[in-house]
Amino acid sequence: MKKVLLLNGPNLNLLGTREPEVYGHETLTDLVNVVTKHGAAAGIEITARQSNIEGELVDYLHEAQAWASGVVFNPGAYTHYSIALRDAISGTGLPVVEVHLSNTKAREEFRHESIVSAVCLGTIAGFGVTSYLLALDALSDHFGKHND
Amino acid sequence: MKKVLLLNGPNLNLLGTREPEVYGHETLTDLVNVVTKHGAAAGIEITARQSNIEGELVDYLHEAQAWASGVVFNPGAYTHYSIALRDAISGTGLPVVEVHLSNTKAREEFRHESIVSAVCLGTIAGFGVTSYLLALDALSDHFGKHND
Amino acid sequence: MKKVLLLNGPNLNLLGTREPEVYGHETLTDLVNVVTKHGAAAGIEITARQSNIEGELVDYLHEAQAWASGVVFNPGAYTHYSIALRDAISGTGLPVVEVHLSNTKAREEFRHESIVSAVCLGTIAGFGVTSYLLALDALSDHFGKHND
Amino acid sequence: MKKVLLLNGPNLNLLGTREPEVYGHETLTDLVNVVTKHGAAAGIEITARQSNIEGELVDYLHEAQAWASGVVFNPGAYTHYSIALRDAISGTGLPVVEVHLSNTKAREEFRHESIVSAVCLGTIAGFGVTSYLLALDALSDHFGKHND
Amino acid sequence: MKKVLLLNGPNLNLLGTREPEVYGHETLTDLVNVVTKHGAAAGIEITARQSNIEGELVDYLHEAQAWASGVVFNPGAYTHYSIALRDAISGTGLPVVEVHLSNTKAREEFRHESIVSAVCLGTIAGFGVTSYLLALDALSDHFGKHND
Amino acid sequence: MKKVLLLNGPNLNLLGTREPEVYGHETLTDLVNVVTKHGAAAGIEITARQSNIEGELVDYLHEAQAWASGVVFNPGAYTHYSIALRDAISGTGLPVVEVHLSNTKAREEFRHESIVSAVCLGTIAGFGVTSYLLALDALSDHFGKHND
Amino acid sequence: MKKVLLLNGPNLNLLGTREPEVYGHETLTDLVNVVTKHGAAAGIEITARQSNIEGELVDYLHEAQAWASGVVFNPGAYTHYSIALRDAISGTGLPVVEVHLSNTKAREEFRHESIVSAVCLGTIAGFGVTSYLLALDALSDHFGKHND
Amino acid sequence: MKKVLLLNGPNLNLLGTREPEVYGHETLTDLVNVVTKHGAAAGIEITARQSNIEGELVDYLHEAQAWASGVVFNPGAYTHYSIALRDAISGTGLPVVEVHLSNTKAREEFRHESIVSAVCLGTIAGFGVTSYLLALDALSDHFGKHND
Amino acid sequence: MKKVLLLNGPNLNLLGTREPEVYGHETLTDLVNVVTKHGAAAGIEITARQSNIEGELVDYLHEAQAWASGVVFNPGAYTHYSIALRDAISGTGLPVVEVHLSNTKAREEFRHESIVSAVCLGTIAGFGVTSYLLALDALSDHFGKHND
Amino acid sequence: MKKVLLLNGPNLNLLGTREPEVYGHETLTDLVNVVTKHGAAAGIEITARQSNIEGELVDYLHEAQAWASGVVFNPGAYTHYSIALRDAISGTGLPVVEVHLSNTKAREEFRHESIVSAVCLGTIAGFGVTSYLLALDALSDHFGKHND
Amino acid sequence: MKKVLLLNGPNLNLLGTREPEVYGHETLTDLVNVVTKHGAAAGIEITARQSNIEGELVDYLHEAQAWASGVVFNPGAYTHYSIALRDAISGTGLPVVEVHLSNTKAREEFRHESIVSAVCLGTIAGFGVTSYLLALDALSDHFGKHND
Amino acid sequence: MKKVLLLNGPNLNLLGTREPEVYGHETLTDLVNVVTKHGAAAGIEITARQSNIEGELVDYLHEAQAWASGVVFNPGAYTHYSIALRDAISGTGLPVVEVHLSNTKAREEFRHESIVSAVCLGTIAGFGVTSYLLALDALSDHFGKHND
Repeated sequence: MKKVLLLNGPNLNLLGTREPEVYGHETLTDLVNVVTKHGAAAGIEITARQSNIEGELVDYLHEAQAWASGVVFNPGAYTHYSIALRDAISGTGLPVVEVHLSNTKAREEFRHESIVSAVCLGTIAGFGVTSYLLALDALSDHFGKHND
Repeated sequence: MKKVLLLNGPNLNLLGTREPEVYGHETLTDLVNVVTKHGAAAGIEITARQSNIEGELVDYLHEAQAWASGVVFNPGAYTHYSIALRDAISGTGLPVVEVHLSNTKAREEFRHESIVSAVCLGTIAGFGVTSYLLALDALSDHFGKHND
Repeated sequence: MKKVLLLNGPNLNLLGTREPEVYGHETLTDLVNVVTKHGAAAGIEITARQSNIEGELVDYLHEAQAWASGVVFNPGAYTHYSIALRDAISGTGLPVVEVHLSNTKAREEFRHESIVSAVCLGTIAGFGVTSYLLALDALSDHFGKHND
Repeated sequence: MKKVLLLNGPNLNLLGTREPEVYGHETLTDLVNVVTKHGAAAGIEITARQSNIEGELVDYLHEAQAWASGVVFNPGAYTHYSIALRDAISGTGLPVVEVHLSNTKAREEFRHESIVSAVCLGTIAGFGVTSYLLALDALSDHFGKHND
Repeated sequence: MKKVLLLNGPNLNLLGTREPEVYGHETLTDLVNVVTKHGAAAGIEITARQSNIEGELVDYLHEAQAWASGVVFNPGAYTHYSIALRDAISGTGLPVVEVHLSNTKAREEFRHESIVSAVCLGTIAGFGVTSYLLALDALSDHFGKHND
Repeated sequence: MKKVLLLNGPNLNLLGTREPEVYGHETLTDLVNVVTKHGAAAGIEITARQSNIEGELVDYLHEAQAWASGVVFNPGAYTHYSIALRDAISGTGLPVVEVHLSNTKAREEFRHESIVSAVCLGTIAGFGVTSYLLALDALSDHFGKHND
Repeated sequence: MKKVLLLNGPNLNLLGTREPEVYGHETLTDLVNVVTKHGAAAGIEITARQSNIEGELVDYLHEAQAWASGVVFNPGAYTHYSIALRDAISGTGLPVVEVHLSNTKAREEFRHESIVSAVCLGTIAGFGVTSYLLALDALSDHFGKHND
Repeated sequence: MKKVLLLNGPNLNLLGTREPEVYGHETLTDLVNVVTKHGAAAGIEITARQSNIEGELVDYLHEAQAWASGVVFNPGAYTHYSIALRDAISGTGLPVVEVHLSNTKAREEFRHESIVSAVCLGTIAGFGVTSYLLALDALSDHFGKHND
Repeated sequence: MKKVLLLNGPNLNLLGTREPEVYGHETLTDLVNVVTKHGAAAGIEITARQSNIEGELVDYLHEAQAWASGVVFNPGAYTHYSIALRDAISGTGLPVVEVHLSNTKAREEFRHESIVSAVCLGTIAGFGVTSYLLALDALSDHFGKHND
Repeated sequence: MKKVLLLNGPNLNLLGTREPEVYGHETLTDLVNVVTKHGAAAGIEITARQSNIEGELVDYLHEAQAWASGVVFNPGAYTHYSIALRDAISGTGLPVVEVHLSNTKAREEFRHESIVSAVCLGTIAGFGVTSYLLALDALSDHFGKHND
Repeated sequence: MKKVLLLNGPNLNLLGTREPEVYGHETLTDLVNVVTKHGAAAGIEITARQSNIEGELVDYLHEAQAWASGVVFNPGAYTHYSIALRDAISGTGLPVVEVHLSNTKAREEFRHESIVSAVCLGTIAGFGVTSYLLALDALSDHFGKHND
Repeated sequence: MKKVLLLNGPNLNLLGTREPEVYGHETLTDLVNVVTKHGAAAGIEITARQSNIEGELVDYLHEAQAWASGVVFNPGAYTHYSIALRDAISGTGLPVVEVHLSNTKAREEFRHESIVSAVCLGTIAGFGVTSYLLALDALSDHFGKHND
């Protein structure tokens, strides 16, 4: 059975309480449950972590090198400026799928690109919680092709 | 049964012949077959169109208003500068999922963001042909939530 | 009797169906009729063309050299990036009046200037369909001064 | 009978004496007379003001709130940098038509957009004195649709 | 008793009539009264001036050198581009507190920094009329520390 | 009695030891005491937190949702680049007043605007420790108007 | 005998009628004849195509893969913004020589570089119709070195 | 005898009182006296004007058309942004010498070029009051060559 | 005996495992040992710290004020954006030598300068682990000149 | 017989020893011989000069005014920043053909345009040594049309 | 008697032969004669140097430290980019007056400021050869005030 | 015994006379002596060259190919703009260590990166003359690892 780290970045612990008209009413716990259930059906065991601290997210990625086959990662606001997370992703060599609940391109107030996309396997954005499920499917498909 | 337009932009007719180490060996016909089969399994009928001409892609989007429930669209190079396609997507009101074979963020030589993402339902990039299948799944999920 | 080309660019065929709160409920056919009637009253015969294809708009401008005394042109999205249309306007030597339904300056999301204005006789923007009628009046005034 | 403020900004008092090959031989007085006559024919009474002082133009716009139904305004050089005039236009709530004798887009040496366009009803540029007459027609059309 | 100039820039004479949902229903007269009363309680005599003319605001600042101990100044739109006002503030040597009714940083449409802040004692923005009262408190505190 | 979080960001623990000619001789403890005393007089109970870690500041803001009526926040260097703190402020929905000891606009070496201002109630900068007291007054005024 | 595609982009059909003081009096037909004759002398058979439509130029390049050994291409205005043409050139793998009648660098009003040069064999600009003949010489030299 | 307008812009009325270590101890009256005396020796009659109001400076330049042969002009802070003054200088057609007390290029905090230089006869900067005397010499030399 | 803090930033804990063709096969432990030994020979006692958390690095710098004579610091990815670390370095007043394993200038994909260099004693980049040894030599030389 | 200066700029003396996979194995002497022979066949006498010193290249261009009919010039790295060479080319009035061994547009790491192209007769880039021969052909063609 | 270096930069040796409608018919020899004569009348001995080589101009400035009291310097094209000349001027400590024949600000095609102005005593531009005479007058005035 | 070129660029011949508070009192001769002595101790023979002329520095680098094992190079002001020196360094293939007396990053007035760093072995900046000694140590270390 494959093991996958489900990693959520800053402020995602507020999910369900913050701007529900944009992000929906599901909490982070709900999200983890849905993703875990979806993973189980695909023979993937999910371990979930969330942190608001950039360096802790770096730590989680480093530790995952020892036990995980892949990562589903929503870097939240760090998407736009964390070169440290970018270095961590390329440093671990794990396949990482970047996910976003909403279409980050549409958040035109900053117009910053994701600076982590270039080192990720791929990006899925805009489908709410479904973004995470599709990311898991993409990882599953990647496992099937590359190391199973 | 839902009908979906599978729309491919400029140079995607060269698929399988062009830089296979980047884009793989599958041709556009192969891609259409795989997507069609994946759609059939989900109760979705695929109609595929490809054009190198910006305005024809605009036309295909306009016509789809009459018969399609959604669009899976790879705008190719137009991703970076076609305001006309952007206007066409927002004008038709159809749910459009933007797909890319490779992670366009990683193509650092132009550093242009997609200017169509903001008017799309979501974006899926980086998983090769699998990007299209995930896009279809995303549309299917969207249909289930919104009008079925 | 003077002959004038009424040329409309990409997505203007959607007129009346797209964002009516911005662009009104009149269709492109309605618009052509109103402009034709307004032209007739001023002794001007209107020929209307619309295309979503940049190069076809170039073709229409080239052909107009042979038969038209002037052009009323709404380049739509191409306003912002078509150097080819700019070259076509300056190449034909015809007096062209650029029109826009809404005040394009106000569309702050792109902040691109019109790159065709510099080679046009003048610009009229912001008055809905009335923009076209004023453009025709401006051309009529120009004909009166320059070659009638 | 409708009342309209005809407002001209800096250096327009030099009209007819300055670069006549660009701006023509008509003086500001000539221009006011032509516009007044054109207004009379349309049942519109013109009151003309000119100032080289940014803040006085702001004052004229404020005062017009009390007596005018609309404004025909050539902001001259302030077009490019007067945020104060922009605020004055949006603050008064009057319909203002921005006019320019020449096609300001063509004055490429500054490449600044008009920063007042976004708060005006519309813009007419490039037709010399005729720009003002078309602006008056546009206002007249606006009065017919909105408050008569 | 300390004397303070309460100086308001362009369009602030429209206060209470312009976009009340943003700026509230109090007029400039109301504002002057509230500030005067607040000043009186702190042993500060207020003299209020308003002008839409950049150079007159410069004049008021110059004249204040002769009689005032400090200035509460809302430069309005000139905040963003008046180097002349910046020079006037640094030229007079008076302690000036910059105030804004709303949080000017949030007005993202121009993204210009205040170019006068660097020569002011401090800045208070975002609290409506209360901004002025806090500015007076800040000046009062400054007087207490520096020359009383 | 209202409860307010007094939150200080990176390097503010060095207060009183670092560049005293700019920041004064008061330590962070002195500052907390002065603010607490000022709060007590206004019926406001202060809880003070300081951290050099961006994500811990995010955590403090999240936790304050449960017990505080408002926040006085000096984000220090994070002012210029922490989109995560910006998201945390808008996510909690608490009224936050941004404070700075010196006039950050004057620190021209970076020329970065505060990226948190737009989501704060208001900003007070330039008055040393007095900035904090004015911020508390502003919050107190806000409480009086909005929920007491 | 080698076969070469002579491809001309937008507005080059106007050659000889447009700004002859810049582009000379020869028409596109004259140009094709001169190039064909020059090719014949070097054992090269010319097939000429011109289109104003970006996507048709892409199509011509794709089709040339099947029959041509090289391309002499003047992309006209598309030189400055067609990423689609750039992709088409690199996708076909044919040696393409970019030509321009005048020195496009000198057209300083846009200051855009050619974005197709990087994927072309070489660039020849500034010698009028002779640019095309030199391009053919360069291709001929290339054939001699690489595949004959 | 030639007549010359000596025109000084915003804040120059503070001369001698403001930052004497940069601008010296001479007042504006002293400066006018020195220039007048220097002019008299060269057969040039000086009329001096100063204003803090941009539009009044425009007015002075317009009026000088009627009586002056040239202008010595220090535009102060308006040097950097007054397109209206630029238009006024080019509109009057008078030879204008731009002067600055200090080397404005060295004021690196704004890095703005003078936007009036391009329409002036020449520029003299950096020599204190001597800048004005050299400007008068330059005008005198110009009169000798061009119209005396 | 002098005490020096050897401080390593984000991802440097991966040393020896990450891209060994760029960074070599030595682990962080190896590096600390080599530097410690080199220090011992020069009468310098090394204390090593590493953290992926920006604020913890700030904390380490603050604490070093109490016990260290200098710092050898590799800020990793934070080099490019941590204004907080910059403030921490200038706040502690300790001599800090910035080191990098590879020549960071050569990492052209971000083109960001180090924003901490300006507050460091000096910078050494590009010599692998030797960079650290040279940094220690530089500190040693500095101690000899300044406080021994 | 026509005389032509063959001028090579900085580092071209290293030809054949530097990066042969990009620039080939021919030395500068080889190149001069090939060009001289090609010139002889066309009745053109070649004088070759090379210098690494910007000002010496300016000198060679100045001297050529006295004896040469044209110049074939590879400015090497100075292409990107020598305004002095640009002035020298336009100052001499000689027809100069700019050549480059490789397609300089493709050297994307600097993205600088040639700043000398605008004052040259034309540009030929990308064909290795053949670039020089084509340049000579272009000059020969130019002589035939203009002064023989 | 004071000694002054008259230093002319690249391409000024072409004076009188190059674009006489802009730069006049006087040669560099004529210019040196006129300046020498003007100097003699003011008790100033002129030594003239010209070079096209940036580093030689640096050398001339260094050498002047030993014998000259000041420099009149026209840096030609190096005005816009020679940081080495800037360093040389500030390094020698001599008073240098920057001169230009034409108004360099008006050369809008590059829009580069002089980067040497900030380290010069002052700048005189736009008066042809008279610029040099005014520069000498300015130096003479400077000598009178500072060291005579 | 290894031979190393010690190369110093523009204005470094002024060392010891220019801004001693920044650059110290040692002259270039002193510096060469110290470096030579340091080299001798490490079995490295130093040959020193200095030039203010960019192309001469290129020549020195080319000649060093024949006899030197490495270069210690302070490019002075050319650091910021000499693409020719960059090409010379990469063309010769010698290991070059870039040195600076002061921390060039800290010279914020230009904010230009070194454009030669990317082609150097490494960079050492900020330690005065010690920078050169550390550079020699770095070269020595490099020799030990790579070719001895």
